Amino acid sequence: MATLDVPASHRDLLDADTAVLATVGPDGRPQLSAVWFLTEDGVIRISLNTSRQKVKNLRANPAVGFFVHDPEAPTRYLEVRGDAAIDDDPDYAFADKLGQKYSADLRSYDGDHQHRVVVTIEPVRVNAIDMLAG
Amino acid sequence: MATLDVPASHRDLLDADTAVLATVGPDGRPQLSAVWFLTEDGVIRISLNTSRQKVKNLRANPAVGFFVHDPEAPTRYLEVRGDAAIDDDPDYAFADKLGQKYSADLRSYDGDHQHRVVVTIEPVRVNAIDMLAG
Repeated sequence: MATLDVPASHRDLLDADTAVLATVGPDGRPQLSAVWFLTEDGVIRISLNTSRQKVKNLRANPAVGFFVHDPEAPTRYLEVRGDAAIDDDPDYAFADKLGQKYSADLRSYDGDHQHRVVVTIEPVRVNAIDMLAG
Repeated sequence: MATLDVPASHRDLLDADTAVLATVGPDGRPQLSAVWFLTEDGVIRISLNTSRQKVKNLRANPAVGFFVHDPEAPTRYLEVRGDAAIDDDPDYAFADKLGQKYSADLRSYDGDHQHRVVVTIEPVRVNAIDMLAG
């Protein structure tokens, strides 16, 4: 697994709170949502309930975008483009680890007979931005 | 132009500061960046320098995603999926209006002989979220 090549100026954002995940929907349009995430050894991972449309999108098309910004300075941000690798998380091993970051139990978000996967972002490109790129 | 159907609970986010814009790149992957935006009469518009990759992406594929969240409660957010309509802004008429929101002169961000367009988001779907959708 390639780790993220993030410049020191933006490395703190790998420990930020909420990120934005982009997938490509069946109609070809980007779909965006707020997600919790955990960076381990330079690899970004997300826990998703398999009932979510974004999991269906990623199974059909692994193209993924990830965005996290500095809440104090929203034009300082990290963008990662890549492909999603999806692994089952039947025992909530990763979900529990992620929950520790947020002091939350991810089981409480899930209905009966629901399942979780770990989405690992395999980076293709990383952009560390510190300006309004308009 | 269809205006956005945004529930009252999330309408304040239409006046928020920075948003995230998603386009689809030549490789089919989502590309995300922080953008300034202005909501006028329920329509979201963005000013972009035509030298930016995201303008090239939108000219090739109008599929667009827009995301804006509450900085105080990042899981309260508005997501808009739609198509981008692109119009020239040769006299900075829109860019100047947008600049007023941010007390900024967008000309100062542009090089000589650069041009701006107005990107108008024609909404196909609006999601007003108030939870972690993981």
